[in-house]
Amino acid sequence: LTAQQFPDSDITVASVGEHALIERVRQRAASSADWVLLGIGDDAAVLRPARGAVDVVTTDAMVEGVHFRRDWTAPRAIGHKSLAVNLSDLAAMGARPRAVLLSLVLPADFPLRDFDELIDGVVTLANAAHAPLVGGNIARSPGPLVVDVTALGTAHPRRLLTRGGGRPGDELFLTGTVGAAAAGLSMLQEGEERSSLSPEAAACVARYEQPSPRTRIGERVAGAKAASACVDLSDGLADAVRQLAAASRCGVVLDGEHIPVDEGAAAWARRRGQSPVDFTLAGGEDYELLFAVPRQRLSAFRAVGRREQNVPLTRVGRLAPEPGCWLERDGRREPLGRGFAHF
Amino acid sequence: LTAQQFPDSDITVASVGEHALIERVRQRAASSADWVLLGIGDDAAVLRPARGAVDVVTTDAMVEGVHFRRDWTAPRAIGHKSLAVNLSDLAAMGARPRAVLLSLVLPADFPLRDFDELIDGVVTLANAAHAPLVGGNIARSPGPLVVDVTALGTAHPRRLLTRGGGRPGDELFLTGTVGAAAAGLSMLQEGEERSSLSPEAAACVARYEQPSPRTRIGERVAGAKAASACVDLSDGLADAVRQLAAASRCGVVLDGEHIPVDEGAAAWARRRGQSPVDFTLAGGEDYELLFAVPRQRLSAFRAVGRREQNVPLTRVGRLAPEPGCWLERDGRREPLGRGFAHF
Repeated sequence: LTAQQFPDSDITVASVGEHALIERVRQRAASSADWVLLGIGDDAAVLRPARGAVDVVTTDAMVEGVHFRRDWTAPRAIGHKSLAVNLSDLAAMGARPRAVLLSLVLPADFPLRDFDELIDGVVTLANAAHAPLVGGNIARSPGPLVVDVTALGTAHPRRLLTRGGGRPGDELFLTGTVGAAAAGLSMLQEGEERSSLSPEAAACVARYEQPSPRTRIGERVAGAKAASACVDLSDGLADAVRQLAAASRCGVVLDGEHIPVDEGAAAWARRRGQSPVDFTLAGGEDYELLFAVPRQRLSAFRAVGRREQNVPLTRVGRLAPEPGCWLERDGRREPLGRGFAHF
Repeated sequence: LTAQQFPDSDITVASVGEHALIERVRQRAASSADWVLLGIGDDAAVLRPARGAVDVVTTDAMVEGVHFRRDWTAPRAIGHKSLAVNLSDLAAMGARPRAVLLSLVLPADFPLRDFDELIDGVVTLANAAHAPLVGGNIARSPGPLVVDVTALGTAHPRRLLTRGGGRPGDELFLTGTVGAAAAGLSMLQEGEERSSLSPEAAACVARYEQPSPRTRIGERVAGAKAASACVDLSDGLADAVRQLAAASRCGVVLDGEHIPVDEGAAAWARRRGQSPVDFTLAGGEDYELLFAVPRQRLSAFRAVGRREQNVPLTRVGRLAPEPGCWLERDGRREPLGRGFAHF
C-alpha cells in the first residue's frame, strides 16, 4: 500500500500502520554522515561523538492548536519549524547540529500524504543542517498532532555559549530583525488572505511558519569566543533579555530606539494603532539570537559579523550592575514588559 | 505560589506557568553526575561524552488514552513508565544510561500535585539508573497528556547489541517472564478492583504500570560479547522475534513449550478460556530482553546469567536458515501470529 498507488485517495496513517510508517521515514531520511553508526530501525540510534567535544542536547515540541493550526500551515512547514526551533536552541549554545530524533503523535485520520510532507519538511532542514534524522517514535494521538524533536549537537567545551556568562557592561546584540513572526501569526489569526498579502506581509507569515535557525553565526561567535552569553528568541525579545540577565545575575537596559523591528511587522503594528516596538516586545517566535558581548571582545564580534554578511547585527542594549529590566526610549526609562507566554 | 502554601487546593499547571514549572523540575532533578556539564535551565543541556565510547540515543512517547489512562494510573507510575520504556531500548543496545530529556505536553487543568508526582516518578527512576534528568520542554495540550522522553546512553563501539547480528543456529533467550503486563492491562480494562486482586494479579498490574528496564543484564551481556543480537519486548514476544529475525535476515522457530509465561498471567488467561501462550504472544509491554546467542558463546552467556542471579534466562527458540517465523508446540509447527499493535 503506497501513496504512489493511490495518489489522490485519502489514505490515513492508521491504515498503513506503524512499521510501514517507520519504513517510509527511513527511506526519506537516508544520509551518509560518517558519525551516524546506526540510524533508523533498531532500538536506538548510535553516534560517534566528535573528538574533544561535548554533546549538546535539546528537545522541543510543537502542538496542534497551540503552536500551529493544520488548516493554516502546510505539513512541510510544520515539520520544518518543529526542527528549526530545536536548531535555534543549539545555535544559542554555539553548538554544531549533528543528529535529530523525531517523535510524532499522530491522529489516526492524519493523511498519509501529509505525513510524507511533514517528514520531508524535517528531513530537508535536517540535511541542510548536516544533522541527519537518525531515529524517533510514532504513536497514535486521540487528539492533536504533536511533533516533538530532539536535536543533538556538538561544541568545543571551552567555546560553549550559555545564558549565564554575561557581566555588567556587556553590550547586547541581536541578529536579524524582530516582530515578523508575531506579525505573521497575527495576520493568520485575523484571516488575512495569503494571496492578497504584500511581499513584506507575506515575508512575516513565512518568518512565522518557517523560521531559519541562526546555526552558523551562533557557531562562529562561539568559535571566536566573541560573546559572553547567548539566548535565542523563542518567546520574544523581552523574555530573552530577562532570561539572559537573570542567568547572568545582571540588570539590563534595552535601547528602545534601536530595536531592529521588521519592516512588515512595523507596518502591521501601525495599521493596528500599535507602536512597532511595543508590538515586537510582546511577540514571540522570531528565533533570532541575542548575544552579550564584553567591550574587549567587540572587535572580534564585529569581525565575525563582517564574515557573515547576510546576518545583520544590531546593538540593542547593555547589561547593567543595578538589578531590573528596563526599556529606554524618548530619553526616559520604563520597566520592561513581560513579553510572550508560550505555555 | 507553591503547593506547600495551598496543600489541598486544586492548583493547575496553567495557573503556575511555564517558568515556575521548569524551576520545580530543576529543583527535583538536582544531580551530581560529573558528566553533566550543564543541566536544566539553559537553551540546551551539555554532557561530556564517555571516553572511547559511542552515544546511543532513543525517544519514546506515552499518550493519555492510548498508552495510559489518568483515572487508572497514578502520575508517579506514568512518569516512571515513560522513562522505563526508553531505558529498555538502551538496555536492548547494551548501552549504559547517561542522561534523560523530558518533553511534557500538559492539559491546562493538569493538577500541579500530579505534575510534581509525575516528575518524581521520572526523577526517581532516572537517578536509580544514574541517568539524571538534564533538560526538556513543557508545552500546553488542548487534549491528552503526552509524556515524551529521550534517553541518552553510552556503549563501547565493539560491544554494541543490535537487532541485526543474529545468525542461523543462534539460540534465543528471554529474560524474566512474559504476559504479565498484558494481563495487568486486561485486568484494568475489565474493571477489576485493585484492592481485591490476588498477589499474582496485583503483580501483573504492577508489571503493566511500572516495568523495570533490564538495564544491567543488557549491559553485562554486551560487555561479555555473549550475544549476537538483542531486542526489547515493547510490542510483545511475537513482534520482538519477528523484528530480530527480519533484521538478522533469518527465519525463527519459537519453542511454544518453554515460553516463560508469568504465573499470574497464565491464571488470568485460563480464567478467560485462553491458552497462556496464545495470550502472551498477543500481548505487549513486558519490556524483557530477547537475546540471540551463538552456540560458541553459550557458556559466556550462562556465566553472565549466573552473576545476575535475580534475572531468569530461558531458552525460547532458535534462529533458522529457512525463512519464516514459526511456533513449535505439541510436536507441530504453526505460523507465528502477529502480536501486539501499539499504534
